[in-house]
Amino acid sequence: MIQVIVTGHGNFASGMLSALKLIAGESEHIHGIDFLESFSTEDLKEKIQEMIESVNGEIVIAADLVGGSPYNVAVTLMTEFTDKEIKVIAGVNFPTILSSVFADRDVPLDVFVKNIMDEGMSAFSEFKPVSMKMCEEEEDGI
Amino acid sequence: MIQVIVTGHGNFASGMLSALKLIAGESEHIHGIDFLESFSTEDLKEKIQEMIESVNGEIVIAADLVGGSPYNVAVTLMTEFTDKEIKVIAGVNFPTILSSVFADRDVPLDVFVKNIMDEGMSAFSEFKPVSMKMCEEEEDGI
Repeated sequence: MIQVIVTGHGNFASGMLSALKLIAGESEHIHGIDFLESFSTEDLKEKIQEMIESVNGEIVIAADLVGGSPYNVAVTLMTEFTDKEIKVIAGVNFPTILSSVFADRDVPLDVFVKNIMDEGMSAFSEFKPVSMKMCEEEEDGI
Repeated sequence: MIQVIVTGHGNFASGMLSALKLIAGESEHIHGIDFLESFSTEDLKEKIQEMIESVNGEIVIAADLVGGSPYNVAVTLMTEFTDKEIKVIAGVNFPTILSSVFADRDVPLDVFVKNIMDEGMSAFSEFKPVSMKMCEEEEDGI
């Protein structure tokens, strides 16, 4: 069963997971690891490593941004765990994490990653009010 | 001066802001409002309304996802505050929030929104290892 480990600076991961809990309830395949101010990079690496070792199945590590310690540690661990299939994604938004709860897990890992990233990307948007005038014009074929 | 109000379910907003503080320090133009389990939608609306009233300048409200209470309240307030220029975006990732600290604020609000969303979108990615063999092939023009 594909597992998702969310990680990021400060309380990024626990913030995402608290939102997830309110919307989707407890999700046993989604895990969060915060990189707190008091942690060293080694502390963070140890925590993510322990999480990787404790779960069964393929793993997606979802980091807050490219190039930060959580991302760099994730990429390092991805190369070190040669016996586990691990993918690392970064810049994830909440819809990506939410969709990872409901997405089909009976697919290859790269398809799962593509599916949740597509969901996340399409959910990133600006609210644009549509005026009644515009709707009427469209109905008139203008 | 353009202000950004981050809002979302649970500790989404405070999680984002804690990550922001670690990377960019205190950002006086970026604010966070959590929609906690103990809040009613009215409580949330009141808090965002107070925030809108307390700040000067144009406002971007950045919500966790389309269709949740934080987003819906933001859209409602956007239509109610006819004397303030407010934009609502949703599905924001951390790079969007981070770029909102450093983005040029001497531009029209719609340009600011486009700029931070472009930054956020381009920072949403999967790590793909590039083998030396591929690099050599590219150098050979293959």
